[in-house]
Amino acid sequence: MAFFDTCTHVDYKALAKKRLPSYLFDFIEGGAFEEHTLKANRDDFQSIKLRKRVLTGIQPPETTTTFLNQTLEMPLILAPVGFAGVYAKRGEVQAALAAKTRGIPYCHSSTSICSMEEVFKATSAPFWYQFYPLKDRVISLELLRKAESLGVNTLVITVDLPSIGIRHRYQRSLASRSRIQELLNHFSWVRNVRLLGGPLVLGDFVPYAKGLNTLSSMRKWLAAQLIHDLNWEELEWVRSVWPHKMIIKGLLDEEDVVQATRERADAIVVSNHGARHIDSISSTISILPRLLEKAHVPVLIDGGISSGLDMAKALALGAKACLIGRPWAYALAADGGKGVDMLLKRYQNELKSVMSQVGVSKIEDLNGIIAESFNF
Amino acid sequence: MAFFDTCTHVDYKALAKKRLPSYLFDFIEGGAFEEHTLKANRDDFQSIKLRKRVLTGIQPPETTTTFLNQTLEMPLILAPVGFAGVYAKRGEVQAALAAKTRGIPYCHSSTSICSMEEVFKATSAPFWYQFYPLKDRVISLELLRKAESLGVNTLVITVDLPSIGIRHRYQRSLASRSRIQELLNHFSWVRNVRLLGGPLVLGDFVPYAKGLNTLSSMRKWLAAQLIHDLNWEELEWVRSVWPHKMIIKGLLDEEDVVQATRERADAIVVSNHGARHIDSISSTISILPRLLEKAHVPVLIDGGISSGLDMAKALALGAKACLIGRPWAYALAADGGKGVDMLLKRYQNELKSVMSQVGVSKIEDLNGIIAESFNF
Amino acid sequence: MAFFDTCTHVDYKALAKKRLPSYLFDFIEGGAFEEHTLKANRDDFQSIKLRKRVLTGIQPPETTTTFLNQTLEMPLILAPVGFAGVYAKRGEVQAALAAKTRGIPYCHSSTSICSMEEVFKATSAPFWYQFYPLKDRVISLELLRKAESLGVNTLVITVDLPSIGIRHRYQRSLASRSRIQELLNHFSWVRNVRLLGGPLVLGDFVPYAKGLNTLSSMRKWLAAQLIHDLNWEELEWVRSVWPHKMIIKGLLDEEDVVQATRERADAIVVSNHGARHIDSISSTISILPRLLEKAHVPVLIDGGISSGLDMAKALALGAKACLIGRPWAYALAADGGKGVDMLLKRYQNELKSVMSQVGVSKIEDLNGIIAESFNF
Amino acid sequence: MAFFDTCTHVDYKALAKKRLPSYLFDFIEGGAFEEHTLKANRDDFQSIKLRKRVLTGIQPPETTTTFLNQTLEMPLILAPVGFAGVYAKRGEVQAALAAKTRGIPYCHSSTSICSMEEVFKATSAPFWYQFYPLKDRVISLELLRKAESLGVNTLVITVDLPSIGIRHRYQRSLASRSRIQELLNHFSWVRNVRLLGGPLVLGDFVPYAKGLNTLSSMRKWLAAQLIHDLNWEELEWVRSVWPHKMIIKGLLDEEDVVQATRERADAIVVSNHGARHIDSISSTISILPRLLEKAHVPVLIDGGISSGLDMAKALALGAKACLIGRPWAYALAADGGKGVDMLLKRYQNELKSVMSQVGVSKIEDLNGIIAESFNF
Repeated sequence: MAFFDTCTHVDYKALAKKRLPSYLFDFIEGGAFEEHTLKANRDDFQSIKLRKRVLTGIQPPETTTTFLNQTLEMPLILAPVGFAGVYAKRGEVQAALAAKTRGIPYCHSSTSICSMEEVFKATSAPFWYQFYPLKDRVISLELLRKAESLGVNTLVITVDLPSIGIRHRYQRSLASRSRIQELLNHFSWVRNVRLLGGPLVLGDFVPYAKGLNTLSSMRKWLAAQLIHDLNWEELEWVRSVWPHKMIIKGLLDEEDVVQATRERADAIVVSNHGARHIDSISSTISILPRLLEKAHVPVLIDGGISSGLDMAKALALGAKACLIGRPWAYALAADGGKGVDMLLKRYQNELKSVMSQVGVSKIEDLNGIIAESFNF
Repeated sequence: MAFFDTCTHVDYKALAKKRLPSYLFDFIEGGAFEEHTLKANRDDFQSIKLRKRVLTGIQPPETTTTFLNQTLEMPLILAPVGFAGVYAKRGEVQAALAAKTRGIPYCHSSTSICSMEEVFKATSAPFWYQFYPLKDRVISLELLRKAESLGVNTLVITVDLPSIGIRHRYQRSLASRSRIQELLNHFSWVRNVRLLGGPLVLGDFVPYAKGLNTLSSMRKWLAAQLIHDLNWEELEWVRSVWPHKMIIKGLLDEEDVVQATRERADAIVVSNHGARHIDSISSTISILPRLLEKAHVPVLIDGGISSGLDMAKALALGAKACLIGRPWAYALAADGGKGVDMLLKRYQNELKSVMSQVGVSKIEDLNGIIAESFNF
Repeated sequence: MAFFDTCTHVDYKALAKKRLPSYLFDFIEGGAFEEHTLKANRDDFQSIKLRKRVLTGIQPPETTTTFLNQTLEMPLILAPVGFAGVYAKRGEVQAALAAKTRGIPYCHSSTSICSMEEVFKATSAPFWYQFYPLKDRVISLELLRKAESLGVNTLVITVDLPSIGIRHRYQRSLASRSRIQELLNHFSWVRNVRLLGGPLVLGDFVPYAKGLNTLSSMRKWLAAQLIHDLNWEELEWVRSVWPHKMIIKGLLDEEDVVQATRERADAIVVSNHGARHIDSISSTISILPRLLEKAHVPVLIDGGISSGLDMAKALALGAKACLIGRPWAYALAADGGKGVDMLLKRYQNELKSVMSQVGVSKIEDLNGIIAESFNF
Repeated sequence: MAFFDTCTHVDYKALAKKRLPSYLFDFIEGGAFEEHTLKANRDDFQSIKLRKRVLTGIQPPETTTTFLNQTLEMPLILAPVGFAGVYAKRGEVQAALAAKTRGIPYCHSSTSICSMEEVFKATSAPFWYQFYPLKDRVISLELLRKAESLGVNTLVITVDLPSIGIRHRYQRSLASRSRIQELLNHFSWVRNVRLLGGPLVLGDFVPYAKGLNTLSSMRKWLAAQLIHDLNWEELEWVRSVWPHKMIIKGLLDEEDVVQATRERADAIVVSNHGARHIDSISSTISILPRLLEKAHVPVLIDGGISSGLDMAKALALGAKACLIGRPWAYALAADGGKGVDMLLKRYQNELKSVMSQVGVSKIEDLNGIIAESFNF
């Protein structure tokens, strides 16, 4: 349909809002407290202006790039998104297939509905694995071994979740709406996901959470397994048992970035966890330049990347690649794997258009094309 | 009810607006003139960003702190709020009980409906006493002696009320609505407070305002007793007759803060009296850093503290504790003492959540965790 | 009525909007082009913050001041407003009486409906006279002599009207509404002003504009008499024939202010003519500090002074007194001379309240009480 | 009609919105992506403030100026606007006649509906010609020879169109509305333009695009002829075969401006192509001062010039003249050639008014009359 050829993150979000029960949409969209940082994550991109050169005589732009010895059709990664299988039937599989089609990495969340095996069976393609170190190192080790055996070549350790944050929007959504009414109003979702899309569990933890078979009971089990006083030593243990690439996700402070030396990580992700757990911290794009000055390893960024234009800005400031979370969750909820596929095509077209307009034909040449000094 | 478990200052304010006659709500909420400073008191918190550290390996946060040799479950005090007994039946007693439950100080306003004796009898707990020096020093002395005898260990002298300010919102509210209609529309309030909640007088002045038994006549009597040309010498007299802790409330200027030496006060409260008496002055949070540089004694702050997140910001800038006024007045009007109790629990949970997210486990470690230089 | 005791410039404006035909209200309110400067004239006051001192032990504030050897009950002057007699029956007389009651100068506009004689006869009080030098110096001289003979002690020469500006709001108002319908909708105004309030002419020019007896024909006659290439020499001629105080109104540029030496004027008014003739120039309050640095004579200001609080700010920055235009025109249209009287009382009360709150008891002590450096 | 005497760009835009099918209006108005730069093009003019001098004794302002040896009644040019013949019947002819009447240049777009011959036949006046170098130099050469033979004295080469940009507004407009319904709702446009206004082709390319007779097929043909890797050498070839004045349009970067020496161009146009092809680049007026510092040749500007006041600002900053695009397209769609004529009269009146108010009588004296340093 012509509509989907042209729609952006904003259109998919509107469609997802229609298709999902409101408490579920609010769970995805909601940020911590009054969502100032959530808004800043997006809005702060607006103050960045690109240099537009003309008469450069360049050939048509190419978005291909390499990162950690991998070839990416464009410098974009599907960020780990929890519970994607609740937004569409076997959602992780659909998203991974779209990523494969578009030639970019899919990063499998620890809190996925589908297991790593299910994703691998459907895609026959390598993917990234997002990992929370667990209290029980035996389980941690088994998960890492399984990932390795399925061809996972890149591990992403999320380090910024000491506790679950406070979200006014989500809490109000739960309090103010009848959940039954919401389900009746969204019967297509109920049928496809709740009735035909099961089992709705945390796929990768089924072997360990013995006797549990509901999502809520498994979430509680996992919450109890998370290490709330995570420290650098624990990361070094993971490093010692994981022989492939390892990325630390969730850094936002200059001193922490300095810690992430080459021995400890192959790359880092500047992230505030989608502004979901604390408000009134820096937006990722606004803090990126200062963190880049301190970084010894390649830097990725997530948070507010709503278009290929935003990608170009992050790359212009010096990031190596971008991750998107909510945008693909919305495209998935709106139109399944086809939605994710079209969204990715959209990002790539936008990135190419911007490169053409500013007179740049290769991804690495985007670095530095900032028009003016800007202050956050 | 689940709703109250999750509601914030904003929700209680909305509920209070429904439950109170509009002129009464507007009296509480209204600021001086066009309320620019009232708005700034709240909005200026938004420009403060916290540093978010990760991998600090901290234990779960504790909010306990000590202030002037007192142990507080969290660095929060119920600010003196005039006429609280008009917002709910015997409001001061309900608020004091909630403060006791949550382990924080209740500061008794001079213009309370309930007397100090009534509060003490209901709570059997020490509290703070907010005091205006009166023209008649005999009365002043008797009030201070009574406070001492009831175990008041901390005196708060309000010094920023040379006259009653001009409030457009309140004046328009009085002019534009039928008071009788408002009473008919809020009959539950009329019954609980006006009919069953009496006597509605200024409890602590009953022995002195001879023959007066209405709130309005007593307010006039008190207004005539206030010292409009208050000066530092008067404060020194109070200091000379009050042997316990003494706090000066209402400082907003660097030179005035310099005057507040340890000989004159044990602590000060940076306050603009809730922006109720003059507009176009500094918001308290914006001026706080400059005043801290000049202060010889510990500094508290009130004005716009709407959440545990705001508390964290004030403490990060260097305040020792925060006072809240309107928030507890709204919670009281919305749901009585239970509302105040739940509001305080909310603030504490929010503060703990923020501490956890930024990687801090003790109150004193919040000092300095500011992400960026910011300009007001 | 209680309402009028408490209403501000904003309330009178709303009332004037109801009482006047829309094209007339839009004529008063309208600024040049898109009204950015009109808005800035008011809004720029918001960024000025006052210092609030406490414990100063001051006596109740007094607003009396002297300016050019005249005693003013407060540092406020009724600015010259054209055609005031069209906004209410014999409007200039009503305004002059209110000014007399409140002890401040009334400045008579050259384009008044009532003549100077009519105003003097009704008030028996001296007033200021706003003067445009005319091409025909004989008429100029006669007007000045008449003013002198009626006790005018202060001449205000407006120098910023080389041509009539372009006002989108007013032009659209004229084009989009039926004038007849407007008159039918405002019959009270038609009766009081159009039918019973005549003659509606330019009172002071009746002896010179021979044979003309309509307002529009007299306006054309006057427009042809205005000197469009006015220069400093013409002002010096006026100075040479006028033996009393003389004020230049309409300066907005540092170099022009430097020109205004004591030989040429006794004072100046920083003014952009209410932003009525050109947009995208400086607001008066924002440019005031820089002009004060260059001024050799006392400086007054008009433009956006909406309250006693705004007065305090202008005085704090260094102005000697303020002029108001639209505010009194609205009060006049809303409630006649009583409206102007109450408005002036309001400004005085507000000024006193602000002085009390910031700890200042005399007008001259307001100078310098700025809380923070601010940038426009 | 009185209405048109007084209406501005804003009024014509509103009228054009009514008269045109929505997808056509959105095509004209739409900018790239989320239109931040489109908005900035207009809004950034608001932060520029003019110096207002008084008592300068100037004569009435004259707007006449000379540019590249041509006399212009005012420093304004009708920018090349594609497909103007679709907005009104034979639109380019109507616009060219209006420009002739008002004594300013009409710049003929390469993608005009009317051919150069048709315009010349109707106006008998010289005009400017906007040119895209084509892949087939034989065609390029023939077009330049034809232009020369018709008296074109100034060539404008657009260099900032390496590809067609992405426009959310236009794409959504096409997707969300029924085109047939739109046509039925705008039958007057259908009759005048679609039925009676033909042929709707790219007039100047009819001899080359053999066998094509629809606008869409000719647009595709032209798109294939555009040089997407345009460079400075190609411009030098044009320079070598065009013996008259040549202007480069579409520069936005300091280094590119440095390249535009007098050997390569007689003047340049600072332009971002109406923000139609990429978002998040500098607005033209904000970047103008920095580009003027680097320029070796006279500088024109387009983008957001909505009034004679905006013209004055651009000239005050140092531009020699301004181009307008969307404004005349709207006036044309709203009221044909009469609309464009009245719009131009309006701009001139506004420019004169501003010059009078700031005390300047000649165009060149506008240079430098900036009131304050301003920061973009």
